[in-house]
Amino acid sequence: MQQDVTPDDIEALAIGAWILGTGGGGSPYHGLLNVRELVAQGRTVRLMDPMTLADDALVAVVSTMGAPLVGQERLVDPQNAVRAVMMMQEYLGCSFDAVMSVEVGGSNALQPFLIAALTGLPVVDADAMGRAFPEAQMNSFAIGGLPMYPQTLCDVRGLETVVAKVPSWKWMERVARKICTEYGSIAATCKAPRTGRQVKDWGVLYTTTKAIRIGNAVLAARKAHADPVAAVLALENGRHVFTGKIADVERRATEGFLRGIAQMDGLDADRGSRMTIEFQNEFTVCSVAGVARVMTPDLICVLDSVSGEAIGTETLRYGQRATVIALPAAPVLLTPNGLLHVGPRAFGHDLDFTSVFAS
Amino acid sequence: MQQDVTPDDIEALAIGAWILGTGGGGSPYHGLLNVRELVAQGRTVRLMDPMTLADDALVAVVSTMGAPLVGQERLVDPQNAVRAVMMMQEYLGCSFDAVMSVEVGGSNALQPFLIAALTGLPVVDADAMGRAFPEAQMNSFAIGGLPMYPQTLCDVRGLETVVAKVPSWKWMERVARKICTEYGSIAATCKAPRTGRQVKDWGVLYTTTKAIRIGNAVLAARKAHADPVAAVLALENGRHVFTGKIADVERRATEGFLRGIAQMDGLDADRGSRMTIEFQNEFTVCSVAGVARVMTPDLICVLDSVSGEAIGTETLRYGQRATVIALPAAPVLLTPNGLLHVGPRAFGHDLDFTSVFAS
Repeated sequence: MQQDVTPDDIEALAIGAWILGTGGGGSPYHGLLNVRELVAQGRTVRLMDPMTLADDALVAVVSTMGAPLVGQERLVDPQNAVRAVMMMQEYLGCSFDAVMSVEVGGSNALQPFLIAALTGLPVVDADAMGRAFPEAQMNSFAIGGLPMYPQTLCDVRGLETVVAKVPSWKWMERVARKICTEYGSIAATCKAPRTGRQVKDWGVLYTTTKAIRIGNAVLAARKAHADPVAAVLALENGRHVFTGKIADVERRATEGFLRGIAQMDGLDADRGSRMTIEFQNEFTVCSVAGVARVMTPDLICVLDSVSGEAIGTETLRYGQRATVIALPAAPVLLTPNGLLHVGPRAFGHDLDFTSVFAS
Repeated sequence: MQQDVTPDDIEALAIGAWILGTGGGGSPYHGLLNVRELVAQGRTVRLMDPMTLADDALVAVVSTMGAPLVGQERLVDPQNAVRAVMMMQEYLGCSFDAVMSVEVGGSNALQPFLIAALTGLPVVDADAMGRAFPEAQMNSFAIGGLPMYPQTLCDVRGLETVVAKVPSWKWMERVARKICTEYGSIAATCKAPRTGRQVKDWGVLYTTTKAIRIGNAVLAARKAHADPVAAVLALENGRHVFTGKIADVERRATEGFLRGIAQMDGLDADRGSRMTIEFQNEFTVCSVAGVARVMTPDLICVLDSVSGEAIGTETLRYGQRATVIALPAAPVLLTPNGLLHVGPRAFGHDLDFTSVFAS
């Protein structure tokens, strides 16, 4: 089953994906401009139900990898996104039947649409995170123990590298990250190809339509002069965490990541308390007075209190009025093996995972 | 024309190549042990006159890349050296007719022999430097403007990467160096394949037999209780530069290289003066009282004053009695374009090249 994606769907996707990005995945704005332009040229994009994938269908899993801050300066080039997929086809001598994003969060939600518009491949309504994460091994295919290689990385200047083989997911992260960093901390990638069976078994399904749904809720609330943040919470069974104002941001682009910590002073019911939010591309843990309130893989989303627009780790700035909400993580991330890959300890936090939705 | 290589040839090659390494290329000792073992198992290795290569023959150009100091700890694995070549064959769908080293200096002189012993390919009596150099763009194929990609890199732990495309030699150096560094500052590599025509036009020819000849001169002098250093100088029209004792060594493994500076106090005719030798894997410039005496691409070789054994940048140590000699560089390195690639400025020295052999 495939359906054409409308320009309105794309606008909503950009808003919803930015919220699901939990601060990372990069701002979808440039990707949105690109897809708008391609659609205006008459290109069409189809969205495909993952459960209709043939078991032996071959799916290209794509992303732009790097430090989100750099994505603000080096614009996404659709041809370069396609090139990473072509490299994989040339390397393996294979032909892809569909394309999907490794992460629905942030600009990477739009990456398969750029490729779909130029190649005619359908986009699979799924990803491998249900959000965004910074490292190669932090996805549901890795949690499922699926092969981690090969991976292609390319760059608009004509840099092309194939990570052909690695002994572990962590090694894929190490080698690919160094290549990406040397490219300038941004690269278009095509991850290890997946069969239809693997996507159905280990993908996080229907996340593209989920992002569109969230985006539409925000747009509808804005139009009705209602509260977009409340609309998202109601739609996705989210949890309000904190309302306040950004008081300080420490941020550094390092080792191919954007790392740092933000401070928020409470407003309204949270007046008088201060929240700390740590991040590595994505928000990982938020705490009040040293006590963790929400931790990865629960989604920590920082939204503009008025417009409901997500705020990324690279766009946080002093004085912003923001509301922090939590959204539930995909179940695969909450399994014991899932938590090994994406729990707080995977980010260096000495914390046992407790879901904010457990209380 | 091909000839079998004898165990005696290999012993001499190790000595001569270490001298031509100008401090770098890594100690040939582990490679020598490997080739000895393979020959003892009955493997044979043939050396091939480069001028007998068919124009369309395909030659694998190989090396172990990295910081020489690391090569002292991570031993050369012949299967891994072969793997880099197999990766290239698989990637390009090609079949090699012969193998050669990118640099005859140091352990890389033995790298094609390991591969030859296991695959049966002949070794071409040539390299692309006539010595050793630390960076990708520092070779005669680069000086000739030949293509710089693809390149394969592999590691005994099952790490395999293909640098498929780059826009320049410097980019090949940047990307491959970062991969190598992440592997642990050592990787077996197969460089961009060369045709027989390219090797004949742009290779530095007959350097394997040159290294064997130098090694034999050292061995003969030792046997005759004569001066091995003098024997090398006489054979290769070299120039005596300095005799002394190592007084100090500053050395750091950084960015995939071994960099540093050594001080020597003069003995005999050089008593009372101090020589400074700078290095980046290889010796680049040696100076007395701030005045450069010899500079790259002229070969700066530091030899044990008694045995004539070369001393590498990673084995320099306080108290060694050493003689510094200069040997002539291959003519291609002395062309204006050659000096852009391997002259003193290519190593960050603010010096116009003057050959010690010009005076």
